Amino acid sequence: MKTLLLSISALALLGACSAQTATEMTKDAAQAADVMPERVVTPEVARLQKLARESTHAYDITESLTTEIGPRLAGTEEEARARDWAMAKMAELGFENIRNEPFMVPGWIRGVETAEILSPNPQQLFITSLGGAVATPPEGIEADIAYFPTFEDLKNAPMGGLDGKIVFISGRMEKAPDGAGYGPANQKRRSGATEAGKRGAAAVIIRSVGTDSHRFPHTGQMRYAEDVAPIPIGALSAPDADQLERTLDRGETVRIKLTMTPRAVGELPSGNVIGEIVGTEKPEEIIIISGHLDSWDLGTGALDDGAGIGIAFGAAKVLMESGLKPKRTIRVIAYGAEEIGLKGGFAYADKHADDLDNHVLASQSDFGAGPVYEVRSGVKGAAGNAVLKDIAKALGLPMSEKPTNGGPDIGPIFNKGVPAMRLQQDGTDYFDYHHTPDDTFDKIDPEHMAQNVEAWVTMLWMASEADTDFRE
Amino acid sequence: MKTLLLSISALALLGACSAQTATEMTKDAAQAADVMPERVVTPEVARLQKLARESTHAYDITESLTTEIGPRLAGTEEEARARDWAMAKMAELGFENIRNEPFMVPGWIRGVETAEILSPNPQQLFITSLGGAVATPPEGIEADIAYFPTFEDLKNAPMGGLDGKIVFISGRMEKAPDGAGYGPANQKRRSGATEAGKRGAAAVIIRSVGTDSHRFPHTGQMRYAEDVAPIPIGALSAPDADQLERTLDRGETVRIKLTMTPRAVGELPSGNVIGEIVGTEKPEEIIIISGHLDSWDLGTGALDDGAGIGIAFGAAKVLMESGLKPKRTIRVIAYGAEEIGLKGGFAYADKHADDLDNHVLASQSDFGAGPVYEVRSGVKGAAGNAVLKDIAKALGLPMSEKPTNGGPDIGPIFNKGVPAMRLQQDGTDYFDYHHTPDDTFDKIDPEHMAQNVEAWVTMLWMASEADTDFRE
Repeated sequence: MKTLLLSISALALLGACSAQTATEMTKDAAQAADVMPERVVTPEVARLQKLARESTHAYDITESLTTEIGPRLAGTEEEARARDWAMAKMAELGFENIRNEPFMVPGWIRGVETAEILSPNPQQLFITSLGGAVATPPEGIEADIAYFPTFEDLKNAPMGGLDGKIVFISGRMEKAPDGAGYGPANQKRRSGATEAGKRGAAAVIIRSVGTDSHRFPHTGQMRYAEDVAPIPIGALSAPDADQLERTLDRGETVRIKLTMTPRAVGELPSGNVIGEIVGTEKPEEIIIISGHLDSWDLGTGALDDGAGIGIAFGAAKVLMESGLKPKRTIRVIAYGAEEIGLKGGFAYADKHADDLDNHVLASQSDFGAGPVYEVRSGVKGAAGNAVLKDIAKALGLPMSEKPTNGGPDIGPIFNKGVPAMRLQQDGTDYFDYHHTPDDTFDKIDPEHMAQNVEAWVTMLWMASEADTDFRE
Repeated sequence: MKTLLLSISALALLGACSAQTATEMTKDAAQAADVMPERVVTPEVARLQKLARESTHAYDITESLTTEIGPRLAGTEEEARARDWAMAKMAELGFENIRNEPFMVPGWIRGVETAEILSPNPQQLFITSLGGAVATPPEGIEADIAYFPTFEDLKNAPMGGLDGKIVFISGRMEKAPDGAGYGPANQKRRSGATEAGKRGAAAVIIRSVGTDSHRFPHTGQMRYAEDVAPIPIGALSAPDADQLERTLDRGETVRIKLTMTPRAVGELPSGNVIGEIVGTEKPEEIIIISGHLDSWDLGTGALDDGAGIGIAFGAAKVLMESGLKPKRTIRVIAYGAEEIGLKGGFAYADKHADDLDNHVLASQSDFGAGPVYEVRSGVKGAAGNAVLKDIAKALGLPMSEKPTNGGPDIGPIFNKGVPAMRLQQDGTDYFDYHHTPDDTFDKIDPEHMAQNVEAWVTMLWMASEADTDFRE
């Protein structure tokens, strides 16, 4: 790779650095001059970054998706409308080779959802069923609460002994920029029904996996073990979990009524929508950027993952607008049915199994709309990692020590050897809104979206220009 | 009044100032030494303030009300349970002359509430009926939207011309510490149905009167003019109002379906719960401190007005705990049915019409759980105002230039000549939660509650010790 490297001060002379970037550099300088690398960019990258910073594509595309489609649960009519939207949007943006790669998914739709404390102190509780869960009888379940402060406490409980009870698992999730608290907190969501079911419980309610204190329960996919009879499981909003805990603290037996009537509706169509910028010199070599098109049904999927769709589409559009022609093919994927178990990611890995050697690098934006603050590598080769370091330098961002699989839908091809990377976003507040009705467009900052596009288009250009095989 | 006045530095020597207060003074000193008056307190007041700062009564009482009763809409069984709770709590705290003064109120209960954009771009919208509103037909109303960016725009519209339309009134409320934006923003809530009805509309939806951007619609009482046929009126959450506006911005006719089925349920019982600390020297002279016991039905009424009940009850309890005996009678009132039109305040004014001359001073805490930051006067006499100034000095707080009627339920007796005052709370975030499901106990800071009690017990003691007639 033969490039003219410019320092940030040279860049400033060229006027290629936007006013905002300059301001941020100044603001950061006092605190972070010793930890944040100086930006080193080529003239092409400087031009792309300026265009990205001035663009509103990502913001506008997310506005369009959330306003015109809204909630788009995997397999539903709404997800089908979102695929039509994505194909039309790709065409409008000028992408090539636009197509839908269909696959089938298990359909599941929400029903009635109510919960109330019957005694002592009758009160309504705000609850939502977890995705994939079975229903209570239509008339609901009335039972005493068996309280477990944490999921560990439930796992440590003896087998049996919870016969007919409604298990309540509390436990709080910690806030962190990279969402490190999600994995530990999420165990109760994924496996709570299995652990409680093994011990004879009639149903489970959990404190929502989230970091807010608003009256929104957080949904999300759960799983049943094959050898345990499935029981209903729902999540309470944080204030309702607090309320139930305060009632339990009074020492009396707490009896509740729980009614949730979701149902499985058989196999339904989903699909991955794909568009490309075909490479000029090595069109067979593919760089994937992506988001996922489906969302949970409660909100309009703005942060999860309308923003990722907007950022991926917007970065490709900025590259096209620049007039620069990438050597390698940029493949933009709007994955379907991510929320219910990475169905789109697995379908892509299956369909393209014979072509994965041609996949140079892959990444997904699926962590909201916060600014990118570091670069993470899921690349094994030294030469590939050197390019990632150059990308980080071009963004003035540090390389993280933490590994990545490139994002949820990239995982299946990463596991088959495709090099991956991630532009890590600040998701400190992401789990305030995640999987709730409150995941709506008003939560998105257009400046942050432009900063994401700057990072993505930088990565796209530098990875497509590199002669490097990222596996080496 | 013969008192020993001490400066704050003398107080510190006496150890009468809590560590926290001292810290706050230090922290504030750099910014506010020139605007915040130095505290001047008697040893009795210093003792009361220390006890108040160390107390958790207000927090605990609010916890008890919201946990054990929860939502308590005027006239309902839940409000009746809240009255029983209040009488039992007053007895537990050691109040005297505990009684309920009953009155009847028009009953109204919420029904189904749904709204959806039918075309273009079908989506659900989060809506709630305003209090007192009539219902749509059970099958709902389908109609085109007539959009008015502000309530002024609707009032300026010609008569007629909205036949069969659903009027959407937007307009945003400004945040302010004293809630100054509420009055202007609230006009559409109170009178939107009348202004739209006059012009032939079938129903009205408004952007919620609130300052948040969460997916909670804000309810609140509305009124119909007698000469205009009543039409349904509901409020959209801010994100849903945004969504509808973005759809309207696209220039097409927007058709929505609206179903809200609240109903009037005849006259129901409410009541004011009253307890006292009987004065030692002038028991017939009454100082009122109060909150209101009812809440809207969506949340658990923590900020509105569980906190006010906690603060009023808690201040009286601290006074009792101190061993100090007030000369005048402290009357603590938990008003009923405030939300639906100050019914408790009017009922009290009627019932006590012949005794109002004995009411020395009256006030209500009904603006959430934020800290008190200034003292407002609704006192006409110079001597009375001099006492209020001394109270402000004892709190290290400024006197406000802005007048007050003492609070919503004090208004009716203030209008009949009873002197009033208010310990103005910082309500910057109050309208984020006001009249929504999100008004729950987790929003309350125990330190702020203790600061409120400090202010209220200071006022109680100084007003009860003053020989002053506040009318003079």
